[in-house]
Amino acid sequence: MRQIHFVAFLQAQNCTTLPAAWRHPDARTDTYSPEYYQHIARVLEAGKFDIGFFDDRLAMPDLYGGDHAHTVQNGIRCVKMDPIACLMTMGAATTHLGLGATYSTTYYEPFHVARLFQTVDLMTKGRAAWNVVTSVNDNEARNMGRAGVMDHDRRYDRADEFMEVVLGHWDSWDDDAIVVDKVNNLYARPDKVRRIDYKGEFLCSRGPFTVPRSPQGHPVVIQAGMSGRGQRFAARWGELLFVVYHDLESGKRNYQTMKDAAAAAGRDPDGMKICSLFYPVVAATKTQAEDKKAAYDRLPNDMDQLSLLSEALNFDFATKRIDEPFTDEEMDGIAGMQSMRDRVQAINKNPTVRDFMELTGRGLLREAWVGGPEEVADKIEEWFTAPACDGFVVGPTHQPGCFEEFVKYVVPELQRRGLYRKNYTGPTLRDHLGLARPDIGAWETHSDA
Amino acid sequence: MRQIHFVAFLQAQNCTTLPAAWRHPDARTDTYSPEYYQHIARVLEAGKFDIGFFDDRLAMPDLYGGDHAHTVQNGIRCVKMDPIACLMTMGAATTHLGLGATYSTTYYEPFHVARLFQTVDLMTKGRAAWNVVTSVNDNEARNMGRAGVMDHDRRYDRADEFMEVVLGHWDSWDDDAIVVDKVNNLYARPDKVRRIDYKGEFLCSRGPFTVPRSPQGHPVVIQAGMSGRGQRFAARWGELLFVVYHDLESGKRNYQTMKDAAAAAGRDPDGMKICSLFYPVVAATKTQAEDKKAAYDRLPNDMDQLSLLSEALNFDFATKRIDEPFTDEEMDGIAGMQSMRDRVQAINKNPTVRDFMELTGRGLLREAWVGGPEEVADKIEEWFTAPACDGFVVGPTHQPGCFEEFVKYVVPELQRRGLYRKNYTGPTLRDHLGLARPDIGAWETHSDA
Repeated sequence: MRQIHFVAFLQAQNCTTLPAAWRHPDARTDTYSPEYYQHIARVLEAGKFDIGFFDDRLAMPDLYGGDHAHTVQNGIRCVKMDPIACLMTMGAATTHLGLGATYSTTYYEPFHVARLFQTVDLMTKGRAAWNVVTSVNDNEARNMGRAGVMDHDRRYDRADEFMEVVLGHWDSWDDDAIVVDKVNNLYARPDKVRRIDYKGEFLCSRGPFTVPRSPQGHPVVIQAGMSGRGQRFAARWGELLFVVYHDLESGKRNYQTMKDAAAAAGRDPDGMKICSLFYPVVAATKTQAEDKKAAYDRLPNDMDQLSLLSEALNFDFATKRIDEPFTDEEMDGIAGMQSMRDRVQAINKNPTVRDFMELTGRGLLREAWVGGPEEVADKIEEWFTAPACDGFVVGPTHQPGCFEEFVKYVVPELQRRGLYRKNYTGPTLRDHLGLARPDIGAWETHSDA
Repeated sequence: MRQIHFVAFLQAQNCTTLPAAWRHPDARTDTYSPEYYQHIARVLEAGKFDIGFFDDRLAMPDLYGGDHAHTVQNGIRCVKMDPIACLMTMGAATTHLGLGATYSTTYYEPFHVARLFQTVDLMTKGRAAWNVVTSVNDNEARNMGRAGVMDHDRRYDRADEFMEVVLGHWDSWDDDAIVVDKVNNLYARPDKVRRIDYKGEFLCSRGPFTVPRSPQGHPVVIQAGMSGRGQRFAARWGELLFVVYHDLESGKRNYQTMKDAAAAAGRDPDGMKICSLFYPVVAATKTQAEDKKAAYDRLPNDMDQLSLLSEALNFDFATKRIDEPFTDEEMDGIAGMQSMRDRVQAINKNPTVRDFMELTGRGLLREAWVGGPEEVADKIEEWFTAPACDGFVVGPTHQPGCFEEFVKYVVPELQRRGLYRKNYTGPTLRDHLGLARPDIGAWETHSDA
């Protein structure tokens, strides 16, 4: 029987992806301690999650008004740590949980990213994943020595080259290259280790790569591109897709579109697992869960929303009055998340600031699935069997309580229904996800369909 | 009483810094497993080492002959993993051991390095150190998207700016910035978090930085520059200095020179701990140790030497016959480790390949201190009390045996003499090293004297 996949949506910061999360009465405050991340890791592993993965952003939100005072005071993701150090901390506390981190294709060299993630994969015995992003903010660019972000489509062209270099390096050592014959002085077979000698328009890297393959071959590639260009990129490269489907019908449609796109790119569609985001608000009963949701909705404030909208769209919302429509020129000039802009513009060609706040719900608890164990399990089952997805990205309202409650209330109900594993069936992340161990060079046939 | 500091010299690779180490009969072969690094970490912590630190190089040695076949076959550092992932693996197995990793100022953005190491410092509760290098190899450059290395002195000019950005970011949050007042919505005090708005000749970075200070303030800065320009850099920035002093007399002289240079740069000389490299070959008795040394000396081969000389000096030694002298032009053109070139040239202005092999001993077991517990402890005490150093970088002939034997034979003897701690006196690396917790902005008075 087809099994649900669960992905925990993590942030190496002072709140969950929801900025108000730190104000939740049950939220732990030691968010920059190893104990905090290790506790979350153990909860997720007890719940047999496929993977926890860290989002990332290379700047503190301060596009809004060009200043960070509001960010620091309101705790809007103002602490943002390196995800790899947090991920390794979690890895040491677990034996099976998959571990993913976001790394940008814009601000690092692919040799570095390939080496870093392949080493994480070895040090966790085949549990690593890399979430590929292209980075959308000017303030990230300014921290990282640039004047501003690259053009959207050019970022993806560079990202395509980046993937070719990273996957090329990951395939540089044959699985049986290493011998370690001390007496006859043969550490590894020279004919089983290759250079890539890559020269592209944006990137070049020579090799030979210096890290051998891991128990799962190489890390799993996570992708979340939602724009037209981003979807083509995901169809070509993504093995685990992070999507946000806003209702069941559009979910079914988009799910099928992505699977078709993978096939068109020359891939087995089953080699791409699609997980849709929701935020569980669960309790022993439906009424208790609804009370929790109502309590949560009192936590966010307008500043949370305006600050995060500015970041996501790379536009300073403080320059507009709340009911002032965006001009065509302003809409065209938005260089951030194109899919978010397009979604708003599909409803209102010249939206106001208030329209952006209401239509995106940025910074608010949207996509909340509220109920007791039965109601939430029903909805999960409905989406999964439709199918609108292969699994779910579980976004936490607060930490660690939200994951604890999900594992306590929902996971056993899904296990009872036979939809979700009671135990891990193998040691690697690819085992959990049902992804085949990649053959050397298999990705080379994927095309930008 | 003044106490000795011990630093373990680690490599995230298939051998120790000595390429022949993997051929040692007792060398473990699972050098890319987490268990290997965790075992070494536990041995070092049992021996109360101040810190283990990972060297790094961003390429497989293949300058010699322009090909890696010899590297892979002879196991000359052909596996080279990301040091942070290995370091975090060790951190999870220990509670006190300091943990350092090398990161280059040439191929990363300082915002990234600052965020990564400050996060490691938080996740290890104040045990992190960063070894600053500028990178010397053309093959590193070619893996990282460049045509070749930068000019030596320009690399250090860039590195100075790099330090200003990293230390600036590390000082961006006051120690009492974070409040976490959920009820009154005050996560942190806006006036206690600053941007740096750095614009230099090579680098720029804006901030605000996104990681708060750690229990030890920020990571310890390790430096190993031995050239003239490199020594000035070390005198300005280094808190823990990795040096190679070839005999006691030159050690005493160079030690004093470095301490004077620190004072001239406006620093307290005691805020810079100087540790000199040696390789212990110890056993229960002197005779047994000498037998071990003799056995070890049968492991290296000429290819080890020629390959590593090519890397260190960034010159293909396969282009010269063994007894062919280097021309003046060739000597001037060497862009790699200037201190190594200068040392050879001081003895022979136009050295041959054989001269380089013999005079540098690159790839061989030089600086070996051979003996039973008494002999080795005597030599350590002699150098330490001279003083020619504040402590020692312990280079392993093979792993993990070399560290196990050092901890078994030499450490107790030094403890008995009152020269070395029996227990850690505090939880942070700065506690072990006797370095004060840095005040915000203290580094800004350091000058390039």
